[in-house]
Amino acid sequence: MKAVVIHAAKDLRIEEREAGSPGPGQVEIAIEAGGICGSDLHYYNHGGFGTVRVREPMILGHEVAGTVKALGTSVSGLAVGDRVAVSPSRPCNACDYCLKGQQNHCLNMRFYGSAMPMPHIQGAFRQRLVAEAWQCHRVADGISINEAAMAEPFAVTLHGVARAGALTGKRVLVTGCGPIGALAIIAARAHGAREIVATDVMDAVLEKALDVGADRVINVANSPEQLSAYSAGKGYFDVQFEASGNERAVRSGLEALRPRSTLVQLGLGGDVSIPQNMVVAKEIEMKGTFRFHEEFGLAVDLINNRRVDLKPLLTDIFPLQDAVIAFKTAADRSRSMKVQLAF
Amino acid sequence: MKAVVIHAAKDLRIEEREAGSPGPGQVEIAIEAGGICGSDLHYYNHGGFGTVRVREPMILGHEVAGTVKALGTSVSGLAVGDRVAVSPSRPCNACDYCLKGQQNHCLNMRFYGSAMPMPHIQGAFRQRLVAEAWQCHRVADGISINEAAMAEPFAVTLHGVARAGALTGKRVLVTGCGPIGALAIIAARAHGAREIVATDVMDAVLEKALDVGADRVINVANSPEQLSAYSAGKGYFDVQFEASGNERAVRSGLEALRPRSTLVQLGLGGDVSIPQNMVVAKEIEMKGTFRFHEEFGLAVDLINNRRVDLKPLLTDIFPLQDAVIAFKTAADRSRSMKVQLAF
Amino acid sequence: MKAVVIHAAKDLRIEEREAGSPGPGQVEIAIEAGGICGSDLHYYNHGGFGTVRVREPMILGHEVAGTVKALGTSVSGLAVGDRVAVSPSRPCNACDYCLKGQQNHCLNMRFYGSAMPMPHIQGAFRQRLVAEAWQCHRVADGISINEAAMAEPFAVTLHGVARAGALTGKRVLVTGCGPIGALAIIAARAHGAREIVATDVMDAVLEKALDVGADRVINVANSPEQLSAYSAGKGYFDVQFEASGNERAVRSGLEALRPRSTLVQLGLGGDVSIPQNMVVAKEIEMKGTFRFHEEFGLAVDLINNRRVDLKPLLTDIFPLQDAVIAFKTAADRSRSMKVQLAF
Amino acid sequence: MKAVVIHAAKDLRIEEREAGSPGPGQVEIAIEAGGICGSDLHYYNHGGFGTVRVREPMILGHEVAGTVKALGTSVSGLAVGDRVAVSPSRPCNACDYCLKGQQNHCLNMRFYGSAMPMPHIQGAFRQRLVAEAWQCHRVADGISINEAAMAEPFAVTLHGVARAGALTGKRVLVTGCGPIGALAIIAARAHGAREIVATDVMDAVLEKALDVGADRVINVANSPEQLSAYSAGKGYFDVQFEASGNERAVRSGLEALRPRSTLVQLGLGGDVSIPQNMVVAKEIEMKGTFRFHEEFGLAVDLINNRRVDLKPLLTDIFPLQDAVIAFKTAADRSRSMKVQLAF
Repeated sequence: MKAVVIHAAKDLRIEEREAGSPGPGQVEIAIEAGGICGSDLHYYNHGGFGTVRVREPMILGHEVAGTVKALGTSVSGLAVGDRVAVSPSRPCNACDYCLKGQQNHCLNMRFYGSAMPMPHIQGAFRQRLVAEAWQCHRVADGISINEAAMAEPFAVTLHGVARAGALTGKRVLVTGCGPIGALAIIAARAHGAREIVATDVMDAVLEKALDVGADRVINVANSPEQLSAYSAGKGYFDVQFEASGNERAVRSGLEALRPRSTLVQLGLGGDVSIPQNMVVAKEIEMKGTFRFHEEFGLAVDLINNRRVDLKPLLTDIFPLQDAVIAFKTAADRSRSMKVQLAF
Repeated sequence: MKAVVIHAAKDLRIEEREAGSPGPGQVEIAIEAGGICGSDLHYYNHGGFGTVRVREPMILGHEVAGTVKALGTSVSGLAVGDRVAVSPSRPCNACDYCLKGQQNHCLNMRFYGSAMPMPHIQGAFRQRLVAEAWQCHRVADGISINEAAMAEPFAVTLHGVARAGALTGKRVLVTGCGPIGALAIIAARAHGAREIVATDVMDAVLEKALDVGADRVINVANSPEQLSAYSAGKGYFDVQFEASGNERAVRSGLEALRPRSTLVQLGLGGDVSIPQNMVVAKEIEMKGTFRFHEEFGLAVDLINNRRVDLKPLLTDIFPLQDAVIAFKTAADRSRSMKVQLAF
Repeated sequence: MKAVVIHAAKDLRIEEREAGSPGPGQVEIAIEAGGICGSDLHYYNHGGFGTVRVREPMILGHEVAGTVKALGTSVSGLAVGDRVAVSPSRPCNACDYCLKGQQNHCLNMRFYGSAMPMPHIQGAFRQRLVAEAWQCHRVADGISINEAAMAEPFAVTLHGVARAGALTGKRVLVTGCGPIGALAIIAARAHGAREIVATDVMDAVLEKALDVGADRVINVANSPEQLSAYSAGKGYFDVQFEASGNERAVRSGLEALRPRSTLVQLGLGGDVSIPQNMVVAKEIEMKGTFRFHEEFGLAVDLINNRRVDLKPLLTDIFPLQDAVIAFKTAADRSRSMKVQLAF
Repeated sequence: MKAVVIHAAKDLRIEEREAGSPGPGQVEIAIEAGGICGSDLHYYNHGGFGTVRVREPMILGHEVAGTVKALGTSVSGLAVGDRVAVSPSRPCNACDYCLKGQQNHCLNMRFYGSAMPMPHIQGAFRQRLVAEAWQCHRVADGISINEAAMAEPFAVTLHGVARAGALTGKRVLVTGCGPIGALAIIAARAHGAREIVATDVMDAVLEKALDVGADRVINVANSPEQLSAYSAGKGYFDVQFEASGNERAVRSGLEALRPRSTLVQLGLGGDVSIPQNMVVAKEIEMKGTFRFHEEFGLAVDLINNRRVDLKPLLTDIFPLQDAVIAFKTAADRSRSMKVQLAF
């Protein structure tokens, strides 16, 4: 079988790998769709991020869905032919954090396509994947495999919404409208946000933001005053989902947030300078949100029951052999939201 | 009557003022003790902080206690001769924030000794003070007026503890052991913190920290490795009370905090650079805490019932006429914790 | 002007009253729609409930909407001709509870159509109503006045949802599908409930429950085993909205709830026997929910923005002169969900 | 070795049992102190409670401490000679609830001395106990083995405190001052309760309640009006710890609780009739609390560090051979608080 392997920055190859066969409790899946994520792009463009570096060839990818081809022993609840979304998150379920129900902080996490540990955790951009049955969530009839493959990034934003607390009656600011920001809009809307204002620096993504449920969008490159108008009094928004990782987005958000409001940080950046006195005086809560745990199943459920429609976010599908073109396309924010590979 | 008036940086004067007389619902108090706070010191040393500047003569002071000398009409529950701690916080009880129970964010707050609005809010370092009866909390027999005058900064830390959520079973880090840090240790201990480690860069204050309840102290100037040892695994502490306003204290604290932990920011600084990726990956909650509301009455209650002992923090009492010496002494961290004036 | 006045059980009269004129900050409204609530029915059928008794003639009604006819002085943000939903809740904004942001527990509440205090608080089933401007929430174009008049009971259920905490990923049981139960389904769905199962003893109301968003309905008179199947293991549901006030509904709900789940009690009953050991062993949280405060504005907002559709719940509109027929019809659960009067 | 075995109601025997030897990760402990709990008394007096019945001989006991006599392989952190408190709670750490951090709701719990499953889970009133090393918490020098054996019931009340949320500034009512009520007073005091009022129907236990930290006690058999005075306005207390399981205690507590307050139910009873309308109108939260999980280690920690003093609660120690007398004595509330066996 073929797999998409990163060797170093800009060195992405389609290579042959052994498929393996399912052991007890496992299934073999023919992967059919795989979404390219920001972290995949970092590996491709920069060979990693921060101190995390590709040190050996690694299969990329963690947003995948496909069809069950074979069952290992002791598998119940799944059948050959089932279409499934596959969670890339494999916590140990035995460490202190797992036993607190905080599996996303597992001390022995094996998350697909991660160069953090050595040896690296191989990813899921491959034609055949052997996975635990519990990683697999059945996709309902009528749901495309491409929508199903968006369950993973959607789960990230559902976890962000869970971190924010109840959105009942809340006015929400979303800064950064790439795939995660756009999915955060969908997740917030589906959980009762009263009003959603979204910002970015590109009109193209802001149009998508409107499509998927924002009440208003602001291009802060052109019209920063539209956002700063919300800072009047002591601020306007109850919750900010910060999906850009950009210092300016954090700081202008803090200005526009009300006392006792919450900023949920989804986007990654490096060091960011914050106005400590404002955080103190307005008693703002800034909290990080990292991956997900039970939200993966919830994401599949919401997609299956058509409580949300993620399809508008899919901008391109490339065949496996065009993986390099796919990665380059995905990196171009001016034309791409979510780009997937077909295996 | 005499009052302690700031005119500009380093220009502190003892001046004569009209005492006024109590109207309906008000009382007249002979102020007997007044603690010098960090913000008083900022006015004295720098003429203000950030954009807040002394623009007209202003009586300083907001940590005061004294004896009731006269009652206006319609005052119940207080008698002439009662010793009282006086809350400097005067919210309007009519704005949106007050009607949400968030009086510390009152849009029309009149907090003693604040140069934020113009005209400035005159403070309480004066021999006679006319205040609303509801600002006054009776001090129990056997409690000194000096302890009572510490109710205000203690209330600040009680509000910080309230912001942290339940401390049951929590391991606590306190960074910065000036008066606020030391009071945070007392407040956290009184509310069940399981373990308290305190840091500072001066041994003198760390000794006080031990006196008032820290389990362990670390001089991070001399032995930073003692703190960084807590960063092993994914960190150790559940809650950090950050009372220094110092960037290094914030950053080293974030390293030593566990996933899903909480940093409560008490100390004021300016811009502070934070490692955004760590906040995200550990899902840390950073939250500001600002002044107090109902915690003032609680502070007096805890002092009255001897659930806490704040006396070890009082390092000096100067007579009114030595106010300038008192301010200079208060600014010297190597010898002072809390310095008070006697009126 | 005419008003609907209760004199005693079964003694409901259409009487002439003085309209009054708007003072400062007030407006005069021509009431156009008024929904009959369960408490109105209690006054009509039984002359009150529990210890609350009609002791003097009282205008009924608190679910009303109409058109602004005149403005008092100092009114901004409203114009003659505006259609408005009117909140019946008039807290004092000065008592301890109001100043904690708990206005629904106001010690001096003046809620329309309540016989609790003496003199009774006159209600809003009248052709002209003088109200405070802040009670009035503008209704958007295209929204019927009848939908607007459902803002009040909808606000009750939104407050219930707020009491439940975040519904993200939650499986919800609604027991009792009268107007409040049905509105609770709508409110829960709009705030992200993952799955909603509704129960009642009448098929007619269960069909409505399906119409407005329940995933499954169970007639517990005919098929109690369908509900008790959810008790397997330690239970299934995360949240129960109990809208019947019925002991059997409470008890069967407790069986079907999971450990650490929440039962939100909306319905009123008298004494109810609960299995204390089950509440302890499953650590269930039972919490009451009472009226609403800021949820009234939220209700109007959600209706205005068509985030919810309450129209299916309106089963009849009667002209004012047929008020008695309207009340009798409203009391017949087999054919009525929400019955309104037209003035 | 000898063990205390229940065969049926009133049929308690001292019998010989095999001691067993420690496997990997296990230790052998010479049990030295064992406290008699209410559930032990139920087995002795009634052969069980509710539907739980003794159906085969079962060693009783789950409040024990002793000295490590032998280590199995792979045990670290414990040495022969260590004195330890032993947690009776053995969750599977693999079921859905364990993996949510809710180990007290484990689907496969093996809690010492429980007749709930068949075969019954044998208890810890025995001279030798083989336990998992992680069940054992080292006891500090200077702490008696009898205090250590109170860690278990203390952990129950610490979990109750954790269920109540932060007690900062809270006024607390404790109803029922048997061992659990008295320990709840200690736990609440240690976590910052502002005021504690305790009730019972026997003066003897109320005196103990004062000893261990209650601010005021009320004998509700003699002076029920002293409690009902707290019902004025809408009530006084923020939190009730209900440790009697008695319906009257629940109902009078609900009267004395404020709007938005919390009743934590510790005591077990059968069916209890509650005034549903009051729970609704005051929006009271009634929540069960069941056993403990991480609070066991916390209990030992607080005892070790002398943050609490449980010694006043120990009223008698009987030698093993007098177990029957011990049980009879423990059942006599007029003279006993906590009765222990010495092995």
